[in-house]
Amino acid sequence: MDFSSKLLESAVNEMSQLPGIGKRTALRLVLHLLKQPKEQTEFLTNALQKMREDIKFCESCHNISDVAICEICANPNRNHHIICVVEDIRDVMAIENTGQFRGIYHVLGGKISPIDGIGPSQLNISSLVEKVKLGNVQEIIFALSSTMEGDTTNFYIYKQIKDTGIITSSIARGISVGDELEYADEVTLGRSIINRIPFENSIKNN
Amino acid sequence: MDFSSKLLESAVNEMSQLPGIGKRTALRLVLHLLKQPKEQTEFLTNALQKMREDIKFCESCHNISDVAICEICANPNRNHHIICVVEDIRDVMAIENTGQFRGIYHVLGGKISPIDGIGPSQLNISSLVEKVKLGNVQEIIFALSSTMEGDTTNFYIYKQIKDTGIITSSIARGISVGDELEYADEVTLGRSIINRIPFENSIKNN
Repeated sequence: MDFSSKLLESAVNEMSQLPGIGKRTALRLVLHLLKQPKEQTEFLTNALQKMREDIKFCESCHNISDVAICEICANPNRNHHIICVVEDIRDVMAIENTGQFRGIYHVLGGKISPIDGIGPSQLNISSLVEKVKLGNVQEIIFALSSTMEGDTTNFYIYKQIKDTGIITSSIARGISVGDELEYADEVTLGRSIINRIPFENSIKNN
Repeated sequence: MDFSSKLLESAVNEMSQLPGIGKRTALRLVLHLLKQPKEQTEFLTNALQKMREDIKFCESCHNISDVAICEICANPNRNHHIICVVEDIRDVMAIENTGQFRGIYHVLGGKISPIDGIGPSQLNISSLVEKVKLGNVQEIIFALSSTMEGDTTNFYIYKQIKDTGIITSSIARGISVGDELEYADEVTLGRSIINRIPFENSIKNN
């Protein structure tokens, strides 16, 4: 693309560094900012700068937080003996939205993925293992994506904590609520048969 | 969405003000910035701020420019007697990419659109009419989108300049190069028959 202005060009270039934003989209977004009052650009850039500079991660669970210990970890009404291990903050938000979990979280910050150059040392794994070894935890729930990387990460953590005798569980994989059986993939359908639950339990949960 | 951090929340809120960016996408973009080195956020916000503060519009054609008169208007090799009227800078870039136009441009900054509250006075129309009345222009090419608003804008400008006896033309509407006739819409196909051109001309242009 041939820009008539260096300022415009560098704004578009920076914008198109964001994931899923190509040059054309970046140009559309930047021209939109140009049409809006200057304040909108100011608010946006200030919010981004302030966030990048000042944001903190909870010292206990590594969730994003404005204070040293996040609201969930600081809440005495939550069960601090059950830890749900998730990949990132979006998963915390998703599980919180269900209203079904009253324990606390541990945010890994990613999955072990050799192809992307992410090893165990780049993730918040050692602090989780330490927490478990301190003996105050009863159950670890693995709630990572059901991918090769997710399974690898689960297994890596499991190996390190299995000697403590702690209960480990994995969220159920199965047919989505409301889904038709004929459209489900074979692996999911197969797993949902192997891991079937007593019918009384399935009624109770409705 | 329930955020665990006010800083994160306000960054996501500002980001989702951009057109086509919803809350979920905004969260994805903001979390991406958090994972990258601080410099990336700095570069992005600096580029946006600098652009919004310092960008200029060419005094002659209203194209975006870093100097008072843009490169195209300042180029003595271009034909300053033919003006192509376009909606915004993206159209200038698109026409420049074809390499088929050697005249100069006039960027209106939008189309007349009562439904969006945009009247003629908010667009760069009066400066175009003045330019034409000064008598140095031979032809005006209307290159606005082929929509109701585009046609209205074309006609509004045409009414103001027709008494000067200037040549006015409109870019050709017709079947896209490479398109199959059967998939073309009726209006476009109809227009392409009414505005047919001598076969010799169509060979020459290939």
